[in-house]
Amino acid sequence: MIDYQSILNAIYNNVVQDEDKGQIANYIPELANVNKDSFGIHLQLISGGAYSVGDSEKKFSIQSISKVLSLALAISKVGTDIWNRLDVEPSGNPFNHLSLLELEKGIPRNPFINSGAIVIADILVSLLENPKTDFLEYVRDITGDANIDYNYKVALSEKQTGFNNYAAANLLKSFNNLNNHVDDVLDFYFHQCSLEMTCAQLTKAFYVFANKGNCMLQKTRLTKSQAKRINAIMLTCGFYDEAGEFAFEVGLPGKSGVGGGIVALLPNEFIISVWAPGLNERGNSKLGMQALEQFTTLTNQSIF
Amino acid sequence: MIDYQSILNAIYNNVVQDEDKGQIANYIPELANVNKDSFGIHLQLISGGAYSVGDSEKKFSIQSISKVLSLALAISKVGTDIWNRLDVEPSGNPFNHLSLLELEKGIPRNPFINSGAIVIADILVSLLENPKTDFLEYVRDITGDANIDYNYKVALSEKQTGFNNYAAANLLKSFNNLNNHVDDVLDFYFHQCSLEMTCAQLTKAFYVFANKGNCMLQKTRLTKSQAKRINAIMLTCGFYDEAGEFAFEVGLPGKSGVGGGIVALLPNEFIISVWAPGLNERGNSKLGMQALEQFTTLTNQSIF
Amino acid sequence: MIDYQSILNAIYNNVVQDEDKGQIANYIPELANVNKDSFGIHLQLISGGAYSVGDSEKKFSIQSISKVLSLALAISKVGTDIWNRLDVEPSGNPFNHLSLLELEKGIPRNPFINSGAIVIADILVSLLENPKTDFLEYVRDITGDANIDYNYKVALSEKQTGFNNYAAANLLKSFNNLNNHVDDVLDFYFHQCSLEMTCAQLTKAFYVFANKGNCMLQKTRLTKSQAKRINAIMLTCGFYDEAGEFAFEVGLPGKSGVGGGIVALLPNEFIISVWAPGLNERGNSKLGMQALEQFTTLTNQSIF
Amino acid sequence: MIDYQSILNAIYNNVVQDEDKGQIANYIPELANVNKDSFGIHLQLISGGAYSVGDSEKKFSIQSISKVLSLALAISKVGTDIWNRLDVEPSGNPFNHLSLLELEKGIPRNPFINSGAIVIADILVSLLENPKTDFLEYVRDITGDANIDYNYKVALSEKQTGFNNYAAANLLKSFNNLNNHVDDVLDFYFHQCSLEMTCAQLTKAFYVFANKGNCMLQKTRLTKSQAKRINAIMLTCGFYDEAGEFAFEVGLPGKSGVGGGIVALLPNEFIISVWAPGLNERGNSKLGMQALEQFTTLTNQSIF
Repeated sequence: MIDYQSILNAIYNNVVQDEDKGQIANYIPELANVNKDSFGIHLQLISGGAYSVGDSEKKFSIQSISKVLSLALAISKVGTDIWNRLDVEPSGNPFNHLSLLELEKGIPRNPFINSGAIVIADILVSLLENPKTDFLEYVRDITGDANIDYNYKVALSEKQTGFNNYAAANLLKSFNNLNNHVDDVLDFYFHQCSLEMTCAQLTKAFYVFANKGNCMLQKTRLTKSQAKRINAIMLTCGFYDEAGEFAFEVGLPGKSGVGGGIVALLPNEFIISVWAPGLNERGNSKLGMQALEQFTTLTNQSIF
Repeated sequence: MIDYQSILNAIYNNVVQDEDKGQIANYIPELANVNKDSFGIHLQLISGGAYSVGDSEKKFSIQSISKVLSLALAISKVGTDIWNRLDVEPSGNPFNHLSLLELEKGIPRNPFINSGAIVIADILVSLLENPKTDFLEYVRDITGDANIDYNYKVALSEKQTGFNNYAAANLLKSFNNLNNHVDDVLDFYFHQCSLEMTCAQLTKAFYVFANKGNCMLQKTRLTKSQAKRINAIMLTCGFYDEAGEFAFEVGLPGKSGVGGGIVALLPNEFIISVWAPGLNERGNSKLGMQALEQFTTLTNQSIF
Repeated sequence: MIDYQSILNAIYNNVVQDEDKGQIANYIPELANVNKDSFGIHLQLISGGAYSVGDSEKKFSIQSISKVLSLALAISKVGTDIWNRLDVEPSGNPFNHLSLLELEKGIPRNPFINSGAIVIADILVSLLENPKTDFLEYVRDITGDANIDYNYKVALSEKQTGFNNYAAANLLKSFNNLNNHVDDVLDFYFHQCSLEMTCAQLTKAFYVFANKGNCMLQKTRLTKSQAKRINAIMLTCGFYDEAGEFAFEVGLPGKSGVGGGIVALLPNEFIISVWAPGLNERGNSKLGMQALEQFTTLTNQSIF
Repeated sequence: MIDYQSILNAIYNNVVQDEDKGQIANYIPELANVNKDSFGIHLQLISGGAYSVGDSEKKFSIQSISKVLSLALAISKVGTDIWNRLDVEPSGNPFNHLSLLELEKGIPRNPFINSGAIVIADILVSLLENPKTDFLEYVRDITGDANIDYNYKVALSEKQTGFNNYAAANLLKSFNNLNNHVDDVLDFYFHQCSLEMTCAQLTKAFYVFANKGNCMLQKTRLTKSQAKRINAIMLTCGFYDEAGEFAFEVGLPGKSGVGGGIVALLPNEFIISVWAPGLNERGNSKLGMQALEQFTTLTNQSIF
């Protein structure tokens, strides 16, 4: 029997001593105002137990991690047809590169690069009656937590400064791969990315992927096959151009965000989330990556 | 003494027989509504004579040819400082590629690719009190023709469908290489591109470049050195990814537009413009390219 | 209890009916001379059972599948130092592209693209006393089968026509990422790729990766961590630019070769190999991919 | 009447004071052993006069400048058919990039990037009975100087270290755009590049391009049209990724080499060559570029 609490404590003590905590994302003031020393982990077992250490109950901006949730909602509503408009291959490039999108004529490489997530946002804007409200409702539902909400200041900041996303959306539109107005799609997208959660909430939100499509409250929200495939995309595409490294060092499907959060999971076993706002050079939480490497090394658990 | 009129007539008879007239640009209705059989040439000698054949007095949309005029105005006002924000190297790529712009961190390769022309538009929006009015005034002034005007329907169409240009402008802004609002810069840019001229007017507008910076009315609008350098950019960058081919086959500085116009010049000797709306695969007037090749072959005149 | 034999039979009957069997690799005569209708599967359980169907005992050229074996030998001898000379990120590009190698200054993206495998070959040429003999010995050892051998005619053909590999090796050398002579490294590399195995032999060769580093004869040939990491690279990089698709559709670490072989595995559970020489557009066995998709769907087994 | 000698003297005095003389090419010892302070200019007028300053009579390795001479010989023998195997567009990339060659399926952008010059070398190897001897004969003939020779040590050094050129030649061969053996073509190519000339000899060698195809001894070696077209390629492609800059600042067709030589010409007027071995960041002679800018500014002569 693994003593998870001791392992989390050991990781905590180990990691917080690192003097180089990486760089906090500062492209919008709301993200920059975070305490660089924040660090929390939450571990949720499918078998029922839960463990945590540090700032695991503090809210942070989940940013790109939300792309997995929007993908899940789109897949649950549209099924495999969404793959007509985007692919599932790793990008092999930093997360904001438009070059590949142009080269591949407006078909994003996968749903976790910005252009791919914008296509998913476009699909949801077409499908949902009240996109922002309905998506928030979905996230609260699968998480089983009605307190989850957008951070409207973060969303507004992104709207005012997210020129690269405007570039991506317009490029998609020039290739006829965006059905709604750029402004409408990005308004939804910026709100989606502004979602705030604690580490504990994040593990609950991702329970559905580790549990064959059945969410925290044991309601079926995805088919087994859909959950499996979303896990596969997380593994191959979840960490920008560090996806191979994460698979290699950690060996779990997961997703990171520039807010410093990372969530990862072992199907049928557990979901673990880490938050440490300082980023490494490739835009992933520096201490978060270290913590997860140590976790899979110490517990000897991975999909491989 | 060269018999220019006979040469123009010969080219006309030769070229209009070509059954494959290329494809008319159809991305906006106003450009698509043009008669595919239109064909005109106008030749203006610096020594004073002028010759023409065909539809040389019909107005057409000069589109990208306007980029030379906006560059000239920017250079005459700002001088060499504009080169801090863009380069003068051939792009070696089709005219709308954003990849290179991203790779080179928001510094456009040259002022004749769309992103480069948008930077020039941004400079003019900053400099001019009433950008659209003042630029039109400048064009009328160097041409010595108060009848030149924008086509507001064409400008509006571009505004509604020019998603690739919105992508480029937002990408520039994400790299801090656009000072004004995207919408303001593009409003100016789309009007600039909507300028309409006849072949005869176009040669007058480009007189200033062939005449050491002195315009049709002999007023100095550029220094000798500025005119020379603009000619150099036309030669190396004036024809999208067919610039080398044009230098090789024709051997004159020039500029083309998707409206089917081409203007070229031999410094101190002449300016020649051709209009034939069907484009070749690289976006340049198919018959226009042929006509100019024949012209320099028959007259044995080129900068080389 | 899963009835594996019935499942293999069902897949066989299903797949062989497909009229479009893909294209046989024809760049060397030895590969082109294969019967297009060949089709075999072999399944080896870690718990002991083995099942097969079709041409599972016919030898074929394993080609790029050999890259996993050379990587394993290099890692077992050198350890993590090999990662100074190459990376573990998916390439996102077809298998023979030199562009990325040039852009990334001679550091191959991963050990399964040709340039990466050539770096591994260079490492082995430096380490091994008799590279070709010693490597063959290693493969026979982990497989527990002394009958495995190179196909010298295939190796010779590659030597005479593998210009793209000569280009890659010279480019590596120009970036100081090749220590031995190009000809020596490629001689080894072409022999390595010419290895011939049956489906049954192939599952035995890959037993070590599914069994925590212990080979078929239960001798430890890799640490648990090394085996895990090689599996991770297979998952993210094992199928050229179809790696994401394979993870998504099949959900197993694996590796393909242009000879039409594919081997995949579920750690601690099984190794499965398929051979069908016709390739799809991305260079992977067309029927092999289908067979493995059906296998994981019917058995409901994957790492996700 | 321009006082050319005073102008050359003024340039000399001006330029030699620059403390930053650039970096000498050091990838082969023979090139590195040159005195960094060397500086010479030679000017040859078509009307007959000749002027020089500094080390204009010292031999140096002309390197890539030889590509113009091999192109001239190939064109004079094969005519326009050579353009089936390469293009005439500027590359917009550093001189040794293979990426573009791969992207464009083995068709080099132009004859002055290495891959293009290697295709020209392949053409000459096929055409000439004794390629190295016959080419040397051609160069001596157009220059009217039997003392010009290869530097066999330089050629040998290139052979031993020119891995990037081996990569390019093999990549060309993989695309079926090289008819002869890689080693044979590169042996010719490395000798061609090892040609040594003084500034004075270099202007004589390029006389044929400035004089409508008639060489120094007034023998016709190219048609007028061929000479014109070679000049056009020099202008658009003669300076790696600084071609636009050279056209912009200098405004003459020309060609540079990593030995620090530059030759440029004004058709029907003059040929000028400069030698200063220190290179700028883009691989062109640093002081040489400055000298030519000053020359065209002071004499007010350019093709534009």
